[in-house]
Amino acid sequence: MHVVFTAAHSKHCPTQELELGRLVPFKETPSRIDAILNALQSFGAAFPIVEPVDHGMDAISRVHTEAYAHYLKNAYRQWVGRGGNPDGVFPDAFAVRKFANSEHQAHHSDEKFPADGGPMGQPGYYCFDNTGIIVEGTYEAGYAAAQVALTAADLLLQSKKSVFALCRPPGHHAHSDLCGGYCFFNNAAIAVQYILDKQPQSRVAILDIDSPLDCQDYHHGNGTQDIFYQQSNPLYTSIHGYPDYPMYWGSPSEKGEGAGMGFNVNVPLPIGTRDPEYLAALATLLEGPIKDYAPDIIVCSLGVDTFVDDVVGNFLLSSDCYTEMGRLIAKAGTPVLFVMEGGYDVPAIGRNVTNVLRGFEESV
Amino acid sequence: MHVVFTAAHSKHCPTQELELGRLVPFKETPSRIDAILNALQSFGAAFPIVEPVDHGMDAISRVHTEAYAHYLKNAYRQWVGRGGNPDGVFPDAFAVRKFANSEHQAHHSDEKFPADGGPMGQPGYYCFDNTGIIVEGTYEAGYAAAQVALTAADLLLQSKKSVFALCRPPGHHAHSDLCGGYCFFNNAAIAVQYILDKQPQSRVAILDIDSPLDCQDYHHGNGTQDIFYQQSNPLYTSIHGYPDYPMYWGSPSEKGEGAGMGFNVNVPLPIGTRDPEYLAALATLLEGPIKDYAPDIIVCSLGVDTFVDDVVGNFLLSSDCYTEMGRLIAKAGTPVLFVMEGGYDVPAIGRNVTNVLRGFEESV
Repeated sequence: MHVVFTAAHSKHCPTQELELGRLVPFKETPSRIDAILNALQSFGAAFPIVEPVDHGMDAISRVHTEAYAHYLKNAYRQWVGRGGNPDGVFPDAFAVRKFANSEHQAHHSDEKFPADGGPMGQPGYYCFDNTGIIVEGTYEAGYAAAQVALTAADLLLQSKKSVFALCRPPGHHAHSDLCGGYCFFNNAAIAVQYILDKQPQSRVAILDIDSPLDCQDYHHGNGTQDIFYQQSNPLYTSIHGYPDYPMYWGSPSEKGEGAGMGFNVNVPLPIGTRDPEYLAALATLLEGPIKDYAPDIIVCSLGVDTFVDDVVGNFLLSSDCYTEMGRLIAKAGTPVLFVMEGGYDVPAIGRNVTNVLRGFEESV
Repeated sequence: MHVVFTAAHSKHCPTQELELGRLVPFKETPSRIDAILNALQSFGAAFPIVEPVDHGMDAISRVHTEAYAHYLKNAYRQWVGRGGNPDGVFPDAFAVRKFANSEHQAHHSDEKFPADGGPMGQPGYYCFDNTGIIVEGTYEAGYAAAQVALTAADLLLQSKKSVFALCRPPGHHAHSDLCGGYCFFNNAAIAVQYILDKQPQSRVAILDIDSPLDCQDYHHGNGTQDIFYQQSNPLYTSIHGYPDYPMYWGSPSEKGEGAGMGFNVNVPLPIGTRDPEYLAALATLLEGPIKDYAPDIIVCSLGVDTFVDDVVGNFLLSSDCYTEMGRLIAKAGTPVLFVMEGGYDVPAIGRNVTNVLRGFEESV
């Protein structure tokens, strides 16, 4: 299986995050991806590494707003310019619920009183938590991660074979104009929209079995869900912990809207879920909603926060479970674009990710 | 002028806040109110001090939701119980714009998937920034501050004379179910609604010339505006800095909605505003919209962040300006309920507040 990777991810390296009211070392570290790369390379020719090809901003702009991309590009410089901590952007206040109802935003949409609150307001307008921390290299790393996903999508479309986009920073918590949950550009969503733009007749199913984040769990892909909430293609499916980060999303009653109604499938599992229950839920999803959708391509947002020792996740899966996950996904008989999302137990992350991919490759 | 005060405010004493990405000492300190009390007492019989009378929760519940009050009461215990920093509640993530559109909330309103995200989600559902920090005594202090405002309202209604509610924590950034900007219960809004419930024929005008907050300025009372945005009584008027905290509110195009259309008047002034421009804007407001409204009572949200040396505000007013402000307000010829809001330059806060009140008393 081809692996798309670039060392540019390391340009995103905040030093700290706010967790339960304490500044703690940043958990979404470059070492995560280095560990995965090392593990893959130990299998030699099985996982050839490919550099991404620059696709420019066009495909990113299909998912993210121009204002948001512009903000990400300039946020750090603006922040430091007005005296912000050089360790990274932490919003002082957030554009929450009542701060941004559509009526209010409509009032605000003039040059002098912008809806995003101007330079002081933008950090809390374009972010939803205290882990979407922008440093000097964040935009460059995020842009490169999107190119990794796009290049992997190209390889899949050309070869009809499964590919692994070893993206960092992760993406599935990022909305069209919101960073958070360690995510900035939604790599999986960008790849999905690119595939649909290139091959409008394709049917794409997203299988979100990750979870990057700082609170405690194996997480719902709120950003990806929101981006495609009103579309019938792709199908979005997610297995995640609840109640847990991102807290305000992930209910099974969130089924999509308009043309998207019925094409959003959330499968929340309780804290402390173990291998048998997890694999049963995955099998049910693959053999039910995903099989029924008859996708041409599966985009798998792959995180391994589900691991028993994960400092962020609260599932109790074993490393063998990851092999079994790969086997189950292979049974669908559909080319899969794996996109790296979360997973924070650095000593185990390489083994867990390779187990998924090897389990998959053995069973294709 | 009677002053209502209770020492219970000191139970709210967070140690730190997050400002521009750094944990810094908490600025909305008990010493602020102690300094004002000392300054008032130096004028002896001119400012008799009265203890608040307990009005219970009824009047608070007219402005704040039951769920929010319940959260404030239990938040600290829950937070510490799940390992949160005992220094106070800092949300990990916030229920921002897209996290809580009404469609989504409707989906969420079942017991298992509550709209507020359950115990993990509540801190970021009921707060909009990193200064609405809840500690063990916050609820008790906030409840007491509301009682101070209510007792002051009673005194005004009985005597028809102006009264000063020396509240802390401040209130005008608090929405019906959001804390932030150092505010928890909206003392001024609670007093206004109480007056309207007691005397439905009264016309009340709110003059918001404060500003508590942590970003940089003399601030718009977003909470008060939002609470009364659809009512024609009270009239809400505010002079504040823009662009500045609370960033997403304060545009003159925010004029109210429905029955409230035309009864919300925002007067933003630029950074660096000095005495003449400030006093001109205040006079224009008093002689224009407020006079036209012909209020029976003015509720003045009084902050002194506008002071030149204020660490939080960016206006450049002198202490004499406060005397002049008091004189201008007195000219309206209407009993005024002064409600303490922000002001963070502790060495000057006592002088500035007493200057407003003395300027007012001299000119009544």
